[in-house]
Amino acid sequence: MKRYSLGVDFGTLSCRAVLVDIDTCEEIISSTADYKHGVISGVFLDGNPLAADFALQHPQDYIDSLIFVIKHCIQNSGVNAADIIGVGVDFTACTLIPVNEKLDPLCFLEEFKNRPHAYAKLWKHHAAQSEADRINRVAKDMSEPWLDCYGGTVSCEWLLPKVMEILHNDEEIFSRTHRFIEAGDWIVSKLTGKESHSLCQAGFKGLYSEGGYPGDEFLAALDERLCGITKSKISANISPLGITAGFISSDMAQITGLKEGTPVSPALIDAHAALPALGVIKPGALLMILGTSSCHILLGDKAICVPGISGYVKDGIYDGLYAYEAGQSAVGDSFSWFIDNCVPKKYYDEAEKIGVGIHKYLREKASEIAPGSGGVMALDWWNGNRTPYVDGGISGAIIGLNLTTKPEAIYRALIEATAFGTRRIVEIYEKQGIEIKDVYAAGGIALKDPLLMQIYADVLGRAISVPKDSETCAYGSAVLGAVGCGFKNLVEASAYMKKEMGVIYTPNSDNKKIYDGFYEKYCELSEYFAKNNRAFMSFLKENGNL
Amino acid sequence: MKRYSLGVDFGTLSCRAVLVDIDTCEEIISSTADYKHGVISGVFLDGNPLAADFALQHPQDYIDSLIFVIKHCIQNSGVNAADIIGVGVDFTACTLIPVNEKLDPLCFLEEFKNRPHAYAKLWKHHAAQSEADRINRVAKDMSEPWLDCYGGTVSCEWLLPKVMEILHNDEEIFSRTHRFIEAGDWIVSKLTGKESHSLCQAGFKGLYSEGGYPGDEFLAALDERLCGITKSKISANISPLGITAGFISSDMAQITGLKEGTPVSPALIDAHAALPALGVIKPGALLMILGTSSCHILLGDKAICVPGISGYVKDGIYDGLYAYEAGQSAVGDSFSWFIDNCVPKKYYDEAEKIGVGIHKYLREKASEIAPGSGGVMALDWWNGNRTPYVDGGISGAIIGLNLTTKPEAIYRALIEATAFGTRRIVEIYEKQGIEIKDVYAAGGIALKDPLLMQIYADVLGRAISVPKDSETCAYGSAVLGAVGCGFKNLVEASAYMKKEMGVIYTPNSDNKKIYDGFYEKYCELSEYFAKNNRAFMSFLKENGNL
Repeated sequence: MKRYSLGVDFGTLSCRAVLVDIDTCEEIISSTADYKHGVISGVFLDGNPLAADFALQHPQDYIDSLIFVIKHCIQNSGVNAADIIGVGVDFTACTLIPVNEKLDPLCFLEEFKNRPHAYAKLWKHHAAQSEADRINRVAKDMSEPWLDCYGGTVSCEWLLPKVMEILHNDEEIFSRTHRFIEAGDWIVSKLTGKESHSLCQAGFKGLYSEGGYPGDEFLAALDERLCGITKSKISANISPLGITAGFISSDMAQITGLKEGTPVSPALIDAHAALPALGVIKPGALLMILGTSSCHILLGDKAICVPGISGYVKDGIYDGLYAYEAGQSAVGDSFSWFIDNCVPKKYYDEAEKIGVGIHKYLREKASEIAPGSGGVMALDWWNGNRTPYVDGGISGAIIGLNLTTKPEAIYRALIEATAFGTRRIVEIYEKQGIEIKDVYAAGGIALKDPLLMQIYADVLGRAISVPKDSETCAYGSAVLGAVGCGFKNLVEASAYMKKEMGVIYTPNSDNKKIYDGFYEKYCELSEYFAKNNRAFMSFLKENGNL
Repeated sequence: MKRYSLGVDFGTLSCRAVLVDIDTCEEIISSTADYKHGVISGVFLDGNPLAADFALQHPQDYIDSLIFVIKHCIQNSGVNAADIIGVGVDFTACTLIPVNEKLDPLCFLEEFKNRPHAYAKLWKHHAAQSEADRINRVAKDMSEPWLDCYGGTVSCEWLLPKVMEILHNDEEIFSRTHRFIEAGDWIVSKLTGKESHSLCQAGFKGLYSEGGYPGDEFLAALDERLCGITKSKISANISPLGITAGFISSDMAQITGLKEGTPVSPALIDAHAALPALGVIKPGALLMILGTSSCHILLGDKAICVPGISGYVKDGIYDGLYAYEAGQSAVGDSFSWFIDNCVPKKYYDEAEKIGVGIHKYLREKASEIAPGSGGVMALDWWNGNRTPYVDGGISGAIIGLNLTTKPEAIYRALIEATAFGTRRIVEIYEKQGIEIKDVYAAGGIALKDPLLMQIYADVLGRAISVPKDSETCAYGSAVLGAVGCGFKNLVEASAYMKKEMGVIYTPNSDNKKIYDGFYEKYCELSEYFAKNNRAFMSFLKENGNL
């Protein structure tokens, strides 16, 4: 008898499902559905403008795409739904939905459909920076014990700033909200008909640390109206991964074609799903997930406070291990920005003439340039900086431009800047005494961009292993979905089901030496703009929206 | 009886002549000829590579284009050559030609035709930076009195660094050179058959100050072999403007169609020719000539040392007045770089669809952005900085980039950066107590780019007058050519023949306030990269050519 697990991955723009044969680890079928409304930014659904830092989504898109991909997988695979014995879900986080008692998003209600704060706030919604600033100030003043677990700084991308933003900008939505729920938890709750909250999301994005949320005294110091919300509006009923969150409800069974009663696991953060997918299960293993943004997850066996990282969560992914997370806010996003905004017509014409895509064309031209990009250096802060500054208010820079600078030199400088940013993260971990033994990379960029991967290996001076194919997140969710059927825990399931590695990029020592010099200058420039002269960046930010 | 003057303007890429009716000031005809070899950079004529900072020209192109434009003007105007009673010439400077006893450029000789150092070094040839550095060091150590007249720093674009570069890189060319002659002087010498050197060029570019060149003791301290060269290889026989340098020789009369014996004036620096063209003749008048680079010429009635400017020359343009010069190394050049390298295909497609040129399209989009360019700020050093840092080793920067930054915001930031650079020059003059009463702008950009002109007016907080048409340089040379026929001096000729002004751009006080804030930050950033952390720019420069 065959046994299958279904993994569903909710990314920034689309939902992807994969059906995996648990015994052979074969991926039977996969399916993708784009979100109809994509990311709602710039202009709201009603045609009115949104502030620059807004990034909303429509929760109906999540449900529609979920149903589509599950039905597609079942109907086109020929697999009997009864043989699908587990479902795992991963989602971007913190992607926050205000819902009512029925767990319906407030934006589904006619009365709130034109209220931006009733919609899902996507992870990269950055409009709560001032709230995050206040949280950091007050937490520091009150010496809140959980602050150190989060590298000393709360990001504007996380749950509490987003909740405060709603409170302060649309109090009616705040008061009518029954739960501020992570979209991943919401999907699991919808599938099972039972409210569920996952430790992975609560721990990394919700300030749920060492078994509890920040206390009411702290919350009241932020705003009296926040007192009590962790119980009343957030819920402290938290599940670790590797258990069953609930079972497919009869409603959802009917709609999706899954069998009623199929176990569903608690939601994972999307990037974290790559760890079980690749069998990254040992302390000292660092996995970089390189996509539009990047995320660096390091496994450790003890609790160490690391200033500037996003945080560590005990049992956050694997029982008994500490998972540390750091990240970069714009990686692929900054390359895409460059391709969309800065590549001249003649390059498109030439690429078309020789029949290659513009990314590939540019990459080939960039690969002909020596390390150092002809003296062009960038600060990779197109979407602020996550680690080490946790600062959405600083922006990108390109320095060293002259009349002979070619687009490919700037493109390469952007790649190198993200590599320098990664090296900073690695060095920050090491400085705190956390050993890094092996480095892995996953995500679309890791597989598609050998130039970038070689630059990363050279800049880090470390070998980097990359899997054979890119479907890691949905696959990782499928591994999670499979835990219940015979594995002791997620570590064991991951060790058995892990995907094959493909290329290993090894560092070139000559290039490493060159990059050592550039990296030193990158750090110097970073400190200048993010710390010593932070006022300069504030000025640009404040005066940039005239 | 009609009286005409012929003005010939040698720019960076072409030569332009205009025939002017001296009494009616009517421009009868004009003619342009591109230089066949343009600017020789990147690759030398023999196919071998040239270093990045090389910018050479072929002197034969000057002669060929000169003959073409003069013949064209005479033949197509129907004007009797006998009625052309004066010729004026302006030329880019310092554009240096090593010539032999017959005043033939060494590159014309078969034995030297493959020697780059035998060719004309164009004003923007930047390969002599290390020579300039040495000159500055030694001059400072020896407290050379002339140094202060040149703002405290000698530019690598000037005569002495270029001569030293030849000495140190091709000594045979150095020793076989009879004269290192400015191309403008060479043209006048060729036209008249009599060697001529103009005070305007010698004063601003040749370190000829207060009636003399730097002394032999100083030159010997630079290199023993330079001792005596101001007499032997440069010539101290200097003519002010407004006199006659010589007369059209019978040879040149035959070749060009001009009448033998027609008076020819000493050569002007091309940008400076705009002053007599526009009647800018009073102390306190500042004229900005905005082209690929920019030049700011201020008239004064006393000698004041201004650190960071290019220099002042007594009688340099008008007898009895001091002419101060400052400048920016890349203005139009940086916009062209942007258009060539950074404007995406979709903008070209859209511009084509609505039937406008890409410059205009981009300008219209940029004009919809508020002052401050959405928080994007640039340092306008795409070709180094001329005033106040006199530093070819620093480069451009763009700061404040984020995922929503549009190309037009960067384009506008580049324009604003050049405006901030201009304001610094104005403030440097004022700080030294030189009053600026009126501001004029000329050059292609001043006439074609109302957005830029308005930004300049707003940033400076001053009205700027712009002439009706752009043919100022050749016309200014024609004014110079006309001095001999009845005017007391160049001031009088200019007052009579001056061109009409067109638009006056007046500052918007709201915008001025916004720009005040940005300007302060621009200065702060400039000081950081050009002074306090100059090592950062050096690192990029040194490691950019791997």
